[in-house]
Amino acid sequence: MMDATTRKKTLRLLSNGVYIITSSHLGEYGAATVTWVSQASFKPPLIMAAIRRDSNVFRCMSRSRAAAIHIVDSSQEQIAQKFFTPTRVDGSGINGESFKMGSTSAPVLQSFPARLECQVRQILDDEGDHAIVVMEVVEARCEAPVHPLTIRESPWEYGG
Amino acid sequence: MMDATTRKKTLRLLSNGVYIITSSHLGEYGAATVTWVSQASFKPPLIMAAIRRDSNVFRCMSRSRAAAIHIVDSSQEQIAQKFFTPTRVDGSGINGESFKMGSTSAPVLQSFPARLECQVRQILDDEGDHAIVVMEVVEARCEAPVHPLTIRESPWEYGG
Repeated sequence: MMDATTRKKTLRLLSNGVYIITSSHLGEYGAATVTWVSQASFKPPLIMAAIRRDSNVFRCMSRSRAAAIHIVDSSQEQIAQKFFTPTRVDGSGINGESFKMGSTSAPVLQSFPARLECQVRQILDDEGDHAIVVMEVVEARCEAPVHPLTIRESPWEYGG
Repeated sequence: MMDATTRKKTLRLLSNGVYIITSSHLGEYGAATVTWVSQASFKPPLIMAAIRRDSNVFRCMSRSRAAAIHIVDSSQEQIAQKFFTPTRVDGSGINGESFKMGSTSAPVLQSFPARLECQVRQILDDEGDHAIVVMEVVEARCEAPVHPLTIRESPWEYGG
């Protein structure tokens, strides 16, 4: 029998970054801070991301088949924190962060110098409490140097 | 048109760890250093890993449906380097590292205090140059403190 405490401790030794993922569909917007993201192929350039199936952003991306992944810099913890709460859009942006439309139907947040814009290729949602979304990178921007925040260096934990 | 240099630079901003994944099937052994690994679910505890489809370890794990993931400590770069080369097994172990059998059919390497033993649940191999393997964690060990090596802190790059 696997010990639950050991399992949690060991799973938390996996290294991950911190990202804001956004999507929109027919006037609905979704945005969330996520960490379970990795590249999955060079050719074509694919990303795999495990996303909570009950989230706004998953609903949007599964319908619109597009998402943007913003790389959070180590100086941007406070911005990342804004996307722990439900998505709301008003004159000041998404959860207070201004955005514009990018190369896909997904909104791109202006505060993040580095981002990947993606088309959803496949969704695997019959296994766990998150759906695994496989996406192809169709646009990339890196407009300033970034020191990526990792979940280990952040005040948060997600895993176990 | 996406710029290839920007795409590579941006993809390399994703944060990943460094792991040795092992598997065996009917006397064949596979072991490789990998980085594209993330948790994918809490309940059940799932891992997703993107593994080169032409590798020994992928052949073994797709047949035996079992794999072990060892977490590389920041002091273990030299051991990780041994698994960049093709797998060979002799009296001294797998690529010179001693092993024993674990809870599944996958060999567990003795040098790594933290590991996850997994059963393969699903393989998605119709998309890119790596297969996405979804595994359930069935055993976890963490026998000493580990400071996980990240691909960014290592001398290597993998991504882009």
